[in-house]
Amino acid sequence: MAIRHKAVLLALFAFAVLPLSGCGPASAETQGQMVRLAKLEIDPAQLDAYRAALKEEIEASVSLEPGVLTLYAVSEKDRPTHFTILEIYADRAAYEHHIKTPHFLKYKQGTEKMVKSLELVDSVPLVPSMKIK
Amino acid sequence: MAIRHKAVLLALFAFAVLPLSGCGPASAETQGQMVRLAKLEIDPAQLDAYRAALKEEIEASVSLEPGVLTLYAVSEKDRPTHFTILEIYADRAAYEHHIKTPHFLKYKQGTEKMVKSLELVDSVPLVPSMKIK
Repeated sequence: MAIRHKAVLLALFAFAVLPLSGCGPASAETQGQMVRLAKLEIDPAQLDAYRAALKEEIEASVSLEPGVLTLYAVSEKDRPTHFTILEIYADRAAYEHHIKTPHFLKYKQGTEKMVKSLELVDSVPLVPSMKIK
Repeated sequence: MAIRHKAVLLALFAFAVLPLSGCGPASAETQGQMVRLAKLEIDPAQLDAYRAALKEEIEASVSLEPGVLTLYAVSEKDRPTHFTILEIYADRAAYEHHIKTPHFLKYKQGTEKMVKSLELVDSVPLVPSMKIK
């Protein structure tokens, strides 16, 4: 009986649990990702300074932090003071590490008075393995 | 005099025009890119069907069209009927080609009655060479 139970448990594991790790929309690599849209409106009088500070912060983050998978920032063509940033972190720990880095803190403190509004929208990717060619 | 004029013009060209093609934030590779945010709200009763149709269209576009550099779609965690898609095309011609493909037309016609609103926001990337690790 004990052996039969073990076999049943093994079969259950193989059919019910294992497929979750290999199939489905998210692979193990992308499963713990943290994805967010940051939406900002910037003081027009400080737009050039803000762009420079954000660019510096993004380039430092992506090059120095393996867990920052992208910070893809765009401004609207018709409203250049409106920014959206697609933020992808490998996992929550990578994000927690990111917001304690010197380059992030420099950006955050340096741009505090340039940012008129900030909205952070936690999001779910439709195709988590998606890249940029 | 004619020769001196020509020399002056050549010097002007070399110092004023040539640097534009090699330097600056955007490389030749990224300069003609078309970047857009698509913002959609979906009928909640048809959300599953919409997600499937969008996923199929995105996967076909990115795998079949070299000029579709990414279609990174997210839905909001707190409002799963609200989607944002970061669309990057190699250039306008790649976009024009994209909207005539059978997979795009199938998606567009098949989801027409699922989409409650659609806003297309032409955008400018801050770091055009940005990728997703």
